[in-house]
Amino acid sequence: MANEQLIKALHDCMAACNHCFDACLNEADVKMMANCIRLDRECSEICGYLEGALSRNSPVVKELAETCAKICDACAAECKQHDHDHCQKCADACAKCAEACRQIA
Amino acid sequence: MANEQLIKALHDCMAACNHCFDACLNEADVKMMANCIRLDRECSEICGYLEGALSRNSPVVKELAETCAKICDACAAECKQHDHDHCQKCADACAKCAEACRQIA
Amino acid sequence: MANEQLIKALHDCMAACNHCFDACLNEADVKMMANCIRLDRECSEICGYLEGALSRNSPVVKELAETCAKICDACAAECKQHDHDHCQKCADACAKCAEACRQIA
Amino acid sequence: MANEQLIKALHDCMAACNHCFDACLNEADVKMMANCIRLDRECSEICGYLEGALSRNSPVVKELAETCAKICDACAAECKQHDHDHCQKCADACAKCAEACRQIA
Repeated sequence: MANEQLIKALHDCMAACNHCFDACLNEADVKMMANCIRLDRECSEICGYLEGALSRNSPVVKELAETCAKICDACAAECKQHDHDHCQKCADACAKCAEACRQIA
Repeated sequence: MANEQLIKALHDCMAACNHCFDACLNEADVKMMANCIRLDRECSEICGYLEGALSRNSPVVKELAETCAKICDACAAECKQHDHDHCQKCADACAKCAEACRQIA
Repeated sequence: MANEQLIKALHDCMAACNHCFDACLNEADVKMMANCIRLDRECSEICGYLEGALSRNSPVVKELAETCAKICDACAAECKQHDHDHCQKCADACAKCAEACRQIA
Repeated sequence: MANEQLIKALHDCMAACNHCFDACLNEADVKMMANCIRLDRECSEICGYLEGALSRNSPVVKELAETCAKICDACAAECKQHDHDHCQKCADACAKCAEACRQIA
């Protein structure tokens, strides 16, 4: 049950981060979005990795979930500072994912 | 729309393949499952990769979807030969995913 | 032999692309580097994926090598337009990798 | 410098694990190799992931290196029990990689 919720949260977060990554690179002021772009990538990568690790019953899901929660927190904090719709949605997805990760970590 | 369906199909296929991979390694006759284990991994990897590529708007999603469909076909054909519930479910998920991949390839 | 060379080319290309990705996000004019950032990520991802696929004897290495060569070409063409040292080095690594990919595709 | 050595150790470990994974599935007694197959996959995945994370300057390389070292230890311990040449080589690569990971963790 907890795993199902986490897998959904990871999936949604990965998709939101990748969408935000792509949209940030199309913004007028890309420089302002540099840290957001970097964290979007980092966050989507680890969420995708953890999703796979969970579904194959990896012995290190707890450690990975803890690391993933840190990246989700950082990405949420960065995205929250930008008014773009894609950033706000990404911040929400990251916050939910961080919480779900902490429930198993 | 097509993308949403494909992303769901890829996600379900990745999860089914990883579950089947794990379950095959716990079966009494692992030798009989060797090719299934190999294809389960291959299929889960490419489905996970394509899911990420789609969500970041990669310029090669069509080529990847074509390659993914081939692996899904091979994994479905192998899994269909085994009576285990995890193999039958995996065969179904792979067949659906192959079809969804071909709609965008 | 061909595999050894390709694995080295993929590895070098992945590292050069990731280094260029990181350095582009630190440039003064990030907007001018937006397409480079996007392609650096795409190229590093598929090179990393193909490297893994080769080392586990995946049945679709030829198809993946063909797709990888396309991304390497695109990333090389983009990077060549920028004077930054990291872009020029990345363009070289991508060109070598594209050639190595085509030898097995 | 430390990073260069770690990247090489990760790369060698990923390749050795994937080769061992493939070779174990071709052994006469696959059942005896089930845990080895599982750990080979896990270890190759996290080594590949950490290699990418290092080359893009991820903010969580220390945490990931710590987790990677655990998997490398587990894979080395399992492989050491089997006489196959691919298992012995894999055990060596895993032990070196665990050590390199701990130097940055």
